[in-house]
Amino acid sequence: MVKNTPQQTENETTVRATAPSNIALIKYWGKSDATLNWPANDSISMTLSRARTITSATIRSNAPAENCHRLAFRTSATKSIAVRDQEKTTRFLEWLRREIKPYGSAEGALDLLTYNSFPSSCGIASSASGFAALTVAATAAWTGTKNFAELHDLGISRAHLSDWARRGSGSACRSIHGGFVQWERGHSPNTQKINPVFSVEHWPLTDLIVLIDRGAKSTSSTEGHARAFTSPLMNVRLSGLGERLKNCAQAIEGRDLERLGTIIEAESIEMHAVMMTSNPRTDYFGSATINFISWLRKSRAKGEFSAWFTLDAGPNPHVLCRPEDAAAVKATILQNFPSSSVIHDQTGSGAILESEQNFGEFIPGGFDGH
Amino acid sequence: MVKNTPQQTENETTVRATAPSNIALIKYWGKSDATLNWPANDSISMTLSRARTITSATIRSNAPAENCHRLAFRTSATKSIAVRDQEKTTRFLEWLRREIKPYGSAEGALDLLTYNSFPSSCGIASSASGFAALTVAATAAWTGTKNFAELHDLGISRAHLSDWARRGSGSACRSIHGGFVQWERGHSPNTQKINPVFSVEHWPLTDLIVLIDRGAKSTSSTEGHARAFTSPLMNVRLSGLGERLKNCAQAIEGRDLERLGTIIEAESIEMHAVMMTSNPRTDYFGSATINFISWLRKSRAKGEFSAWFTLDAGPNPHVLCRPEDAAAVKATILQNFPSSSVIHDQTGSGAILESEQNFGEFIPGGFDGH
Repeated sequence: MVKNTPQQTENETTVRATAPSNIALIKYWGKSDATLNWPANDSISMTLSRARTITSATIRSNAPAENCHRLAFRTSATKSIAVRDQEKTTRFLEWLRREIKPYGSAEGALDLLTYNSFPSSCGIASSASGFAALTVAATAAWTGTKNFAELHDLGISRAHLSDWARRGSGSACRSIHGGFVQWERGHSPNTQKINPVFSVEHWPLTDLIVLIDRGAKSTSSTEGHARAFTSPLMNVRLSGLGERLKNCAQAIEGRDLERLGTIIEAESIEMHAVMMTSNPRTDYFGSATINFISWLRKSRAKGEFSAWFTLDAGPNPHVLCRPEDAAAVKATILQNFPSSSVIHDQTGSGAILESEQNFGEFIPGGFDGH
Repeated sequence: MVKNTPQQTENETTVRATAPSNIALIKYWGKSDATLNWPANDSISMTLSRARTITSATIRSNAPAENCHRLAFRTSATKSIAVRDQEKTTRFLEWLRREIKPYGSAEGALDLLTYNSFPSSCGIASSASGFAALTVAATAAWTGTKNFAELHDLGISRAHLSDWARRGSGSACRSIHGGFVQWERGHSPNTQKINPVFSVEHWPLTDLIVLIDRGAKSTSSTEGHARAFTSPLMNVRLSGLGERLKNCAQAIEGRDLERLGTIIEAESIEMHAVMMTSNPRTDYFGSATINFISWLRKSRAKGEFSAWFTLDAGPNPHVLCRPEDAAAVKATILQNFPSSSVIHDQTGSGAILESEQNFGEFIPGGFDGH
């Protein structure tokens, strides 16, 4: 693995992929098989739109060996820094190469340049968007394709890309598709399915991501997943998730935000209760989170707005509301939590390749070194 | 306080009261004022029918002093044992005497003989039925009344009895009334209200109390209540309870058992999550409870029956179902948990005085020394 910083110049053979993050409505927490990323339960998420990772990939002409990939984060329009620990990415890329082989040459080392449209440690799952964008970019580069239609002609569908992205980071599989995506664990690691169950057009919702605590996470998601089954609540949780997921899907189908909101709040508190009762204890529930949630619920009960929260494995809440209410809800949040900042996102349409359409508008100032 | 065992002979001046236990659907957990039993939140319960405390009270003719009450538990049809620690009861009775004074003489020490129709440490709140029966019996004895009509003529309503019973043990207030009872905390300890919101006739339900763990509770409810606010989940819980209680009342009003079931399961798990994340940790969630809950949910999801659980501050689940399904659900439980036993109870009509109606049928073998 070469350590020098790539000063990549995009050329004709460069492909550029972008993938959004997603917010889980029914959470993925705990794995039945950690190596194969086989989740303990089915989950369902909403794909986001503006919170994205953008990754370009070029086959490196003069690499010393096939697995000498170079991964860099773009820090500004002209600068980038090499990623320090490339081991996980390299391992994933070499696994991916073997999957792609039946469909294309998949030869050569890759130069990868990536950046996020959102700040780091903000409650947006960058590993979801990151591994989704990486998978699409690497696949396109190695197969010499420029868009999903060409990939499709080679026999590579979104279902393949989703399944591959999952091996990099579990929740990345849900970011390949748009709208509302259900990840079914199946009966074995190899019978998992990732299904887009409702489109963006079916029900566009707003997700206001409220940054109230910018501290780095004390426990990684990987470590948290591994602890899940030490909680006395874990099996109880799993036994009830089938019904909850069914209810969640019905609420989305019927566009019933109040019903969906009640479900996602109970769901995210339950996941955090599992975390808090794990051994060792994982606790993302600081006073900032508690105060915000309590305020949101009390304000809603008073009829001030119709908005519900969910939480990923971190302290920053996502507030879901109807697009027509978003401006007012956001203003009320900023008025009551003046030191917070709010990222205004919405239901989106999944991963794209550059030649297919524009990347769309990015969040101003959202460029981030990591 | 005299220490000898009372060999009480019931005579013309003996009154006999009986009060059922109740099962909370929205729980009472945590107090805003421990001395005045001012709960942190509103709760709603279903009054039971067969799980009862029966207490007779007689004014003691030759007591050395007014506060020399004697309290004994009946252990068989002819035997009783004196209660060792009578301090809490005596303190409550002296407080109650002052409340009753405006309505009657309230003079003399009381001989009290009591027993439960259910075994101890079984997940049935004996303090609820116990303090409710005690309140009614003592009030009737001190005012020389024999039924609720005579009490009413003196100006003592069920609302008074309920409010008084609450001072003995919070949840006892809900056992005075029948059907579904809401305990509203109000804006101060003195503005609490206990309202029977739906009658027994509105929606009779079955409660199967499943004894899977007969070990004594490791932490008393009093101690558990005191720890509630040390949990990071407590304020989050409180902020969402208004909506949950509203939904619960709507489910009862609409006789929607599936909706009610979903609410009470989430509610009881949340209460136990607060317990488990309190400092020190209170944990009633042993493997027996986890296995039972998981089994119940999975069986229900497979369509085997329509039954939902709730848990009080203990390991033994209460399973709610429609009366017409009760026999089948009970049989399935006993088949899958052959070492458990099931107490078959149902919605009941609150506290009674003997002269008004029969005590009804008691649970065979349910007599218990404590």
